[in-house]
Amino acid sequence: MSEAEVLVERSGGVARIVLNRPEQGNAINHALTERFYAAAIDVAADPSVRCVVLAGNGRMFCVGGDITEIAAGGDAIRMQLKALAARLHDGVLVLADMAKPLVTLVNGPAAGAGYGLAIMGDIALASEVAHFTAAYTAIGLTPDGGLSWTLPRLVGMRAAQELILTNRRVAASEAVAMGLVTRTVAEDALAEEGMALAAKLAAGPVRSFCNVRRLLQAGQTRSLEAQLADEAETIAASIEGEGREGVAAFLAKRKPVFTEG
Amino acid sequence: MSEAEVLVERSGGVARIVLNRPEQGNAINHALTERFYAAAIDVAADPSVRCVVLAGNGRMFCVGGDITEIAAGGDAIRMQLKALAARLHDGVLVLADMAKPLVTLVNGPAAGAGYGLAIMGDIALASEVAHFTAAYTAIGLTPDGGLSWTLPRLVGMRAAQELILTNRRVAASEAVAMGLVTRTVAEDALAEEGMALAAKLAAGPVRSFCNVRRLLQAGQTRSLEAQLADEAETIAASIEGEGREGVAAFLAKRKPVFTEG
Amino acid sequence: MSEAEVLVERSGGVARIVLNRPEQGNAINHALTERFYAAAIDVAADPSVRCVVLAGNGRMFCVGGDITEIAAGGDAIRMQLKALAARLHDGVLVLADMAKPLVTLVNGPAAGAGYGLAIMGDIALASEVAHFTAAYTAIGLTPDGGLSWTLPRLVGMRAAQELILTNRRVAASEAVAMGLVTRTVAEDALAEEGMALAAKLAAGPVRSFCNVRRLLQAGQTRSLEAQLADEAETIAASIEGEGREGVAAFLAKRKPVFTEG
Repeated sequence: MSEAEVLVERSGGVARIVLNRPEQGNAINHALTERFYAAAIDVAADPSVRCVVLAGNGRMFCVGGDITEIAAGGDAIRMQLKALAARLHDGVLVLADMAKPLVTLVNGPAAGAGYGLAIMGDIALASEVAHFTAAYTAIGLTPDGGLSWTLPRLVGMRAAQELILTNRRVAASEAVAMGLVTRTVAEDALAEEGMALAAKLAAGPVRSFCNVRRLLQAGQTRSLEAQLADEAETIAASIEGEGREGVAAFLAKRKPVFTEG
Repeated sequence: MSEAEVLVERSGGVARIVLNRPEQGNAINHALTERFYAAAIDVAADPSVRCVVLAGNGRMFCVGGDITEIAAGGDAIRMQLKALAARLHDGVLVLADMAKPLVTLVNGPAAGAGYGLAIMGDIALASEVAHFTAAYTAIGLTPDGGLSWTLPRLVGMRAAQELILTNRRVAASEAVAMGLVTRTVAEDALAEEGMALAAKLAAGPVRSFCNVRRLLQAGQTRSLEAQLADEAETIAASIEGEGREGVAAFLAKRKPVFTEG
Repeated sequence: MSEAEVLVERSGGVARIVLNRPEQGNAINHALTERFYAAAIDVAADPSVRCVVLAGNGRMFCVGGDITEIAAGGDAIRMQLKALAARLHDGVLVLADMAKPLVTLVNGPAAGAGYGLAIMGDIALASEVAHFTAAYTAIGLTPDGGLSWTLPRLVGMRAAQELILTNRRVAASEAVAMGLVTRTVAEDALAEEGMALAAKLAAGPVRSFCNVRRLLQAGQTRSLEAQLADEAETIAASIEGEGREGVAAFLAKRKPVFTEG
């Protein structure tokens, strides 16, 4: 399993999905997308996993699509690239919809589809050596991995246009200032600090966390009125789940213990 | 009336809605939501009211839901919390849809549903001693009061995620820098400056103001094409109302007098 | 043609649309909207045009609607303003939907509908002497030109509310910091630098560029899932067009040559 294109490592309530083609900068090829989708299903469906971490192995987080494999598509190049992106997106959607939080650890440079993966975390931590480059239009392509949906919501439309049209590289510190990632971490502390954060989230109210994500996402495309109705329904459901413990602990002035999913 | 959970005070064309449980940090209980909804209907329906101010009495703006009352719900806890949130939301929607501007004066700390109320103003002024804490996930709950709709539109998705998932407290000065509120005001000047601003808005083109709010809200969930059609319709309607006076005054190089609603 | 209210100047693959009522601050009247719409159709439909520039002639970029002409509408004032805005919007939509990038050069002050035009570029360059004022509510009117759709997406909802309700003037440097425009350029360098940028875009993958714009726009009002499906379809289509050259050049370590539309 250690030679698979994507690894899944469990530790307590945390599962770490690792993009694992370090010699190729974790470039996304068909094999990696299949493994990535399987890994996403694996951790999403496992009730013992309460928080998921996504990181890259080696010096890069992910350089994006594997250009050499894509170029080898020949007459079927369009169909093959469609299949590659669609399978990647299957995995993206599983992680975006799963009932537990996602932390992305951007250990190094992210480009193309790697950019979209890097910023999809509910919390995104970037190594100080990480940087972000859209890269698509430099070779006549267009965004995938959700970048065209996520980027304007994180950094505003003006920066999104500029970053995708000009492929300007954003350093980690600027990425924080823009809202691309949550914060930076020293390179040699990222793995440890990321796992500690994930463990803390795993010990928290994970159902609340995933309902927050769902509400934030759904609220992007519906009216305030519809959102208010969902908010009322969701907070009421929470009070019979994690909220029962949370409220009891609050009133007893003790720390809550969240264990139900 | 001075002992009611919500007060309504009129002054010229301005009505001030005051959350009035100062000993409880203006915590939101059933009685307060009923009074809040009634107050919202009252000021929205009164044609002599041309601007509405929302503030808290005492040291806090609003600490959010009344946890003690919520916890006392027993077997009906889910139904009761649903009713509490739904009634609060009835009031929120009345203020969000009324045909006059809303100024929020965040006189002190805002948390939970108080956070959502604090930031819903077309203009939001915060005392320098105010601060903002989402607080929901700390006790296993999820946002209400429109927070999950409004927050990402004010501060971007990344900050919205961080603030709701980690409950990080935002000080007044940072709240301005992020776009959470319009500006800060010295603590002892807030009430006066807020009422002066409201009086100025009340003397202005309030129909234009509320159409601006409606267009900004509606534009969040529809295409540019649909928005352009509405903009053309709305500006044309304006020219037969407040715009007639506005344009005449502009051409005569005098100050306009806006009195029709 | 040099006395027309809107000029179209071609240079290589770039067409420059110039608002040309310099003595009136390029105020938007019926004649200008007709010329503007015709100019938009002209450049959008011309396959030899690969990038469009929008600028103003004279000291102003555009002061907005021609108040004198609007006021002369008499009994038909509402119908006439509706027609004026609708015709302007026809032109706006053509530029927003055309299959080539748009660069706006904000050579001077922009107000009212001029504000909306100024910020609609995929890339917007502002002269250091430019400034931005919404101006509508000062005369009892409401936004047009797409301002109520575009502004909150560039600067966030809080700043959009403040700028439209208070008509605060934003200087060029602040406009960059807020995300209103991409960057500033020295006044006497704007025309040249703008045309150089446009020429560079015209030599690039213009189909990628316009698909980026389309995806960014469409993604505003649909779910992540729908966006991912479109992204996969679009990148796959790209690989048979400009992407074929882009990928080939990348692998050959040479500069790509993008000539097909």
